[in-house]
Amino acid sequence: MSGYEFEEFTDADLEADQALYRPFTDAIRGLVDAGVRSTVSPEEIRAAQAEIEAITARLRASQREGSYGVAFNGSGKARPYGNSVVGLRNAVAPPVPITWGPDGLVTADFTLGAAYEGPPGLVHGGVSALILDQMLGEAAAASGRPGMTGTLTLRYERGTPLGRLHAEAKATHRAGVKSFVSGWIGDADGPTVRAEGVFILPRWARKEQSRFE
Amino acid sequence: MSGYEFEEFTDADLEADQALYRPFTDAIRGLVDAGVRSTVSPEEIRAAQAEIEAITARLRASQREGSYGVAFNGSGKARPYGNSVVGLRNAVAPPVPITWGPDGLVTADFTLGAAYEGPPGLVHGGVSALILDQMLGEAAAASGRPGMTGTLTLRYERGTPLGRLHAEAKATHRAGVKSFVSGWIGDADGPTVRAEGVFILPRWARKEQSRFE
Repeated sequence: MSGYEFEEFTDADLEADQALYRPFTDAIRGLVDAGVRSTVSPEEIRAAQAEIEAITARLRASQREGSYGVAFNGSGKARPYGNSVVGLRNAVAPPVPITWGPDGLVTADFTLGAAYEGPPGLVHGGVSALILDQMLGEAAAASGRPGMTGTLTLRYERGTPLGRLHAEAKATHRAGVKSFVSGWIGDADGPTVRAEGVFILPRWARKEQSRFE
Repeated sequence: MSGYEFEEFTDADLEADQALYRPFTDAIRGLVDAGVRSTVSPEEIRAAQAEIEAITARLRASQREGSYGVAFNGSGKARPYGNSVVGLRNAVAPPVPITWGPDGLVTADFTLGAAYEGPPGLVHGGVSALILDQMLGEAAAASGRPGMTGTLTLRYERGTPLGRLHAEAKATHRAGVKSFVSGWIGDADGPTVRAEGVFILPRWARKEQSRFE
C-alpha cells in the first residue's frame, strides 16, 4: 500500500486550485509572519486570537478527516497540496517553487522570512535540511527514479542568511534501487549548506518501475 | 558578532509571554491546519482570506523590523520565540517542547498533524531532519557546549507516521571545539529516523566558554 491515490483532475482544475488557494495560503503565511513579529498590545493579540479561532471554526465546518495525502491523475500530475515544502495549501511551506530542468537539474529560488529563523538573522539549520530533503527527492524523481529518503547528509559551511535564497540538486548515479543525489542551498555568494542523499525506490513501486526499463 | 542580544526580563515576564502567546500561536496553528484540510466552498475560502488579511494588517500596525532574533537575560534564559521548531510565537513550529534531563539527555513528546506531511500519511522526511537538528543542537548545549550545526547525518529506517511522536538526543563526546551528538525520532514502536551530528562552538563564543573550563 503506497497511500498515493488516483483522482481524475484536469489541468484546468489545477489552475483553478492555484487561483483560489495561492492567495489564501499566502494570507495565512502573512499571518504566521505577523504572529512572530507583531508588537501590538496584549488586548489586540487576544482580539486577533478570537477572530482567528472563529475563521478556523468556519473552515473546519467541512474538512478532510486526516491529512491531505497525495493524489495523481492519469497524466501523472500530482496534487501534493499538504506537503511541508511545496504544498499549495500548506502555510508551513515557504513555499519553495521547484523547477525541473531538462537535464535532471532541479532548481528553486525563494525567500525565507522570520518564521524560518534559528540563530539570530539566520535560517534554522533544520529548515535548510527540510528544503534540501525535498529538493534531493525531486531530483531523484526528475532522473526517472522517485524514492523515499534513505540517508541524508548535510554539511553546513556557513550561516544561511534569512532572505532571498537559491537551491539546486541533481541525481549523480544509481545502484539497484538506490539513487544518489547531491545538492546545495545558498545565497548570492554561493552555497551555505551542501547535501548528499540516497533515495530508495519503494517496494510497491518497483514492479511499476520495471515496466519502463 | 553573534547576533544574540542581552535583554532584561524576569521569570514573570516569561510566564506572561506563555499565557498570552501560547493560545494565540495555537490559534494560528489551527488555521494553518484548517487551511490544508478545509473543503468549504471557494466563496467561503475567499471570505476567510479577506478576514485573515485584515487581522494581519492590524497585527502589522506595530511590528519588529526583521526577524525575532534571540535574546538572553542575565540568568542565561532565552526568548527564542521565532525559532522554527520551538518558537513560542512561531506557528511553523509544531511546537516541540524539549526537556533537558539532568544526565544531558534531551527528550520531547509532540504531535505532528497535516501540515507536516510528505508522503501520504507520513511525516515529511525533511521535517524529521528539522526537528532532529534542533534536538541535537539542544543536546550539545545541555552538555555545556552549545554550537552551530557542522554536519548532520540522517538515516531513515522506516516511514514516520503523522500523530504522536517522541524524540531524544544526547551528546556522546567532544574533540576540541566539536561536540558529537546522536538522537532519534520515532513512534510507539521505536525509532524511525536516527541522526548523528557534529556541532561546532562558534568563534565568538570560544573565549566566553574558556572561562568555564
